[in-house]
Parts: sequence; structure tokens; C-alpha cells
Amino acid sequence: MRGRGDRLEAALAERGLDRMLVTDLTNVRYLTGFTGTNGAAICGPGVRVFLTDFRYTERAAAEVSEWECVTLSGDWLGGIGERLAGKSGFEDDHVSVRTLTKLEEKLPAGVEAVPAGGVVEALRRVKDAEELAAIAEASKLADAALKQTVESGFVGKTEREVADFFEERVRGFGGTLSFDTIVAAGPDGAQPHAEPGPRQIGHGELIVFDMGAKLDGYCSDGTRTYATGDPGEEGRRVYATVLAAQQAALEAIRPGETGEDVDAAARKVIDAAGHGEHFGHGLGHGVGLDIHEGPRLSLRSDDVLAANEVVTVEPGIYLAGDLGVRIEDLVVVTDDGLRNLSSLPKELTFVD
Amino acid sequence: MRGRGDRLEAALAERGLDRMLVTDLTNVRYLTGFTGTNGAAICGPGVRVFLTDFRYTERAAAEVSEWECVTLSGDWLGGIGERLAGKSGFEDDHVSVRTLTKLEEKLPAGVEAVPAGGVVEALRRVKDAEELAAIAEASKLADAALKQTVESGFVGKTEREVADFFEERVRGFGGTLSFDTIVAAGPDGAQPHAEPGPRQIGHGELIVFDMGAKLDGYCSDGTRTYATGDPGEEGRRVYATVLAAQQAALEAIRPGETGEDVDAAARKVIDAAGHGEHFGHGLGHGVGLDIHEGPRLSLRSDDVLAANEVVTVEPGIYLAGDLGVRIEDLVVVTDDGLRNLSSLPKELTFVD
Repeated sequence: MRGRGDRLEAALAERGLDRMLVTDLTNVRYLTGFTGTNGAAICGPGVRVFLTDFRYTERAAAEVSEWECVTLSGDWLGGIGERLAGKSGFEDDHVSVRTLTKLEEKLPAGVEAVPAGGVVEALRRVKDAEELAAIAEASKLADAALKQTVESGFVGKTEREVADFFEERVRGFGGTLSFDTIVAAGPDGAQPHAEPGPRQIGHGELIVFDMGAKLDGYCSDGTRTYATGDPGEEGRRVYATVLAAQQAALEAIRPGETGEDVDAAARKVIDAAGHGEHFGHGLGHGVGLDIHEGPRLSLRSDDVLAANEVVTVEPGIYLAGDLGVRIEDLVVVTDDGLRNLSSLPKELTFVD
Repeated sequence: MRGRGDRLEAALAERGLDRMLVTDLTNVRYLTGFTGTNGAAICGPGVRVFLTDFRYTERAAAEVSEWECVTLSGDWLGGIGERLAGKSGFEDDHVSVRTLTKLEEKLPAGVEAVPAGGVVEALRRVKDAEELAAIAEASKLADAALKQTVESGFVGKTEREVADFFEERVRGFGGTLSFDTIVAAGPDGAQPHAEPGPRQIGHGELIVFDMGAKLDGYCSDGTRTYATGDPGEEGRRVYATVLAAQQAALEAIRPGETGEDVDAAARKVIDAAGHGEHFGHGLGHGVGLDIHEGPRLSLRSDDVLAANEVVTVEPGIYLAGDLGVRIEDLVVVTDDGLRNLSSLPKELTFVD
């Protein structure tokens, strides 16, 4: 966590804020290291206060350093309010209307709550070495679990059984899931967010396998599409198009490019193949403590890429009632391009 | 879901609201049956509209009946705003400050967004037959998983290994977890929300085992405290006190009692044993689609119990650095008392 409070303090100064109240638990964890379910951080010049309740006093003492730990009992918002000062930013994208109303009743005279959502999220985009290592480990773990799952075979099993096998491997390797695994066979693959169902996987189908592991709080995210025998000419062509689109996007990634530009590199390939309307989602997103975070790679994203950001690159083509293909890598933006964390092959792989 | 929209419509009329915008996904699921991750419901006299995006059009068609399904593309808040009318309630306890600001920009002239959080949650307190059956099944499943875990033994395993065994059994039986399992041995038991750690379970320890399963979206919640051999005089005495406190609370439960009264029945017993300050949480909470919902059984809860509410009854005593004991049943309030969904024995059980 070293230095994260200082980066936040600098960001506050830029915005003319005297204090920042951080209540989103992922942001609190990022700043302080606290992993419990009730905590808040207040940051300002010379001010680093972490607040929790009695249930987490011991955990805070073990996890939080560089921030003064305070256990509040009773009046939670009052305890927060009296520690704010001047123009105090709050996370308006997380704080509920009701909570703000109650907090404002507790603010000392002269203290003003100012919407400042996204400030910590912006800091979180660029990862430090420790974070990059955690994400790379999570990705490695997930890939190893997927490799074993593929080796165990698909045909004759249900989507749910295949997903269960993968998820047990992830846990066996000491990870948890960064999101609910997607195993979508045949026409189910045409739903970008399908849930693994009772559909038995047959021969000659395309299977979209979207999966991630979480390790030390950090997520991975990756997708491969497999074939249980020849998926037919259309299936092969769609696969080749998605792979070419992904390659084009990977080549476009470097610091200074916008999310829109990188998205466009993939979208151009898919448009040219006549499937523009079948790629109905953005190209990718940042990954870290959250499975979806900044920057966004999408049709109208003006996020500018920077070194040490971690993003997915996941174009897809979805033909309703027929099939779907998505290929997704997790990459670290580097000074001159990217480092790809995904280790599994991308040529069309046949699985029994 | 039958009739839930009608109950909401009646609740709106009582509050002088013309429409209610429901955006909390659990509340949306309760009303409409939709289980995806983006959806909203708008309810009013003769109005039952469910809104989602293209990713969930098919799922909505499969899951949602009695509500008109609309797929919005592009301007989500605009599509919602134009369907609101007059005094339109919104969930101020869930809607963020930022979202409300943006929604208000989209409201047609004469339409007012009125804080109305908790309206759907209040409906959810009293369960219908289908919900009661789902919760009872989830509880049965969790108890069966815990029974097998106890039979497999504790001594020499880490807390984490014991928790993993339980969690695998839950999944093996077709459930998921309703929350992260707590297995807290010896002094770890003194933390009411301990995470299972690398601590190896020895002889003569008390082990707090707090666990729940989820089935068809509904949660269970239960706790037993086991002993790996004689926990000593203090351990035995604390256990007996918690058990007596729980019994007193169970006897106090019936429609018309307040959450404060039922909490007091247990707290009196613990106070009398000199452990008042070691019972630092409320006695219990409602359980349903959420693991924590209304009504609350606690020191200052004026919630009045009604038939077919489902609540936990979970007194505990926590002696820091030494041991903890908690005993928790899940019960349905009936016309003349309660039906206990927890099936496992409560006398102090010794486990190898």
C-alpha cells in the first residue's frame, strides 16, 4: 500500500479538496490494505485515518499500516463527519442518496461534502509491481485450471459440469473465482453472458469458455473458444475473424492510445467481415481488485492508455440461435506495447 | 412472483406515490423473477414494466412474466425517466448520489423523484409458501453438509481445510454459499466474523462454525459451536449460558413481539451470567434472498414480528484471546410461535 495515500493526497490538491472520504470497500482496501466488510478511510494533508467497528479492530491492527486506525462505536456517520474538514470529497458514485443526507446532518459548520467519485479508481488504473505480480499469478492459476479442464474433455458433459470442474481446479490451486465462469456451447455461445446450463455438449460445437481466478484480492480474466470437432465453414470463418480482430487490437495497444482507438482496431476487422452488428459489446476493460475497472476499451472511450495498466482484449462475434466466438487475453500495457499474461494457445483447438 | 407487484402497488398508494422505480437487483428479482445483473422495474397503477439491456433480452423473456419486458439501448436513465410519472419513488438507500443527479436531468416536467427506500424490502419480510420452501431446503442442505463435515473430523486440520470440506459438500449437493463460511477455533472464535485461517485445530478447543447455503436464490444461516474434547470449566459454562440464552429467545418469538423484546430475552440470560459486555452484536436478522434482511432482532429494533417472517436467533459470548461460543438457529415465525428450520443438535457435541 506504500505511497498510495500520498498519490491520493496529490490528487486531492489538484482538485482543491481538503479531505477525501473513501467508503467504497475496494478503494479502502487499495489504500489501506483492509479486507473486512466495514471500513472507511479519510485522507488529507497529513491526515491518514482508517475507521472501522469493533468487529474488525483486530483485523485492522493486523492489516492496516501507515493509517491511524480508529474503532467507532455507535454513531458511525457522526464519527466520520467530525473528522472531515473544509471541502471534503466523497464517492458520489458509491454513496447512496440516503447516506449523504444523513452524513450532511453530521457535518460540522463550514464543512462541505463535494462529489468526487472516481478519484481513487483513477489511481487504481496504473498498477504497481506487487499488483502486477498478483494479477500475473492469478492469470497463471486460471490458465492452469483451464488447461486441466480442457484435457478432461467436454463432449457428453453438461456446461455446468465442465464449469464445476474448472472451478474446483481453481480452488484446488488455492484461488477463488473472479466471476462466475461461462461455459456456453453451440447456440448458447451467442449470449455474451450465458450461464453454464444443463445443455450437454455435443460434437462439432464451438464452446465459449470465459473464466478468471482471484488471488490475494486480484482478478484475472480470459476467454478461449474451443471446438469439439469441425464447427463447419461458418464457425471456422467466424473464429478466424475474431482471432484476426484480436491480433489487430493487441498490435494497437501502447501508452497514449485511447480506448476508442484500440476498440476500433478490432471492430474494423469484424466490420469488414460483415459482422459489425454481431459484436455488441466493448473490446475490453481494466482488471485489478475489481474484475471490471478502468480503463475501458470501447466505442466511445476517451481513456488514454498508460504503462502498467492491465486490460482485457476480448472481441467476439455472436450469431443468435447459432454460435458465438470470443477470444480474450489479459495484457499489461508496457512502455512500447504490451506484455501478454495469457498463456494458452489461440489457434482453434479441438477438444473431445 | 404472483401478486408481488400488486402488494407493491398497494404500498405505493399508502405513501401517495404514483410510480416506484426499483433498481436494487435483489428487489427486482423478488418482484419480477429476473436473475441477471442489469434490470429495473417500474410499478404503478396498471403499470408493470421491466427494463433491461440487449444482453438479457432472452433471459428476461424466459424468467419474467406479468411484467412488460422492454430492452433499452443507449440511454438507460432516459428510458427509465420517460416511464416515470407524478411522484415517483426511488430507492434512496441504494441509488447513488451521482445516479440520482443524472436521472433527475432526464425526468419529464412535473415528475418528481421521491426517496422511498425500503418499500420493497418491507414486502420481502413476510415470505410466501414458495419462499419458505426454498429457505427450508437451503437450510436442510447446509445442515447435511455440516453433518458430513463434523463426521470427517476437525483435529489436525486447519480451519481453512474444514471450511473447504463443508463448502465442497454444499456444492456437491447442488447449492452455493450464502456467505463465506466461518470456522474459528480456540481464540479465533472470539472474533464474531473470523475468516478460516491456517490455524490447526487442536484438542480441547471450541470451534465456532457459522455457515449457510443458497438454493434457488434463497439463503440459509446457522451456527453450531463444537468441542474437540473438554473445553474446560469456563468453556462449558459459557456454552451452557449461550444455549440457555438462545432457548429463552426462541421462547419469546411470536407475532407481535418486537425485535428489541426478543433480543432482550437472550441478553438477560447473558447479562445475568456476567457476560453482557461479551455479546457485542444483535441477536438475529431476517433471511431470504439476502443473507441479512429485515426484521432485525437487536438492542434497539422496533421491528414487530409477523407470521411467515424468517429470522436467525444467534446469541454469542466472545472472550478475547480465549474462546467464543455462538449458537444459531433459523426459524419461521408462525401464528403461535415458531417453526425451527435448523435440524442439528445443540447440546455440546464433541468432535475428533
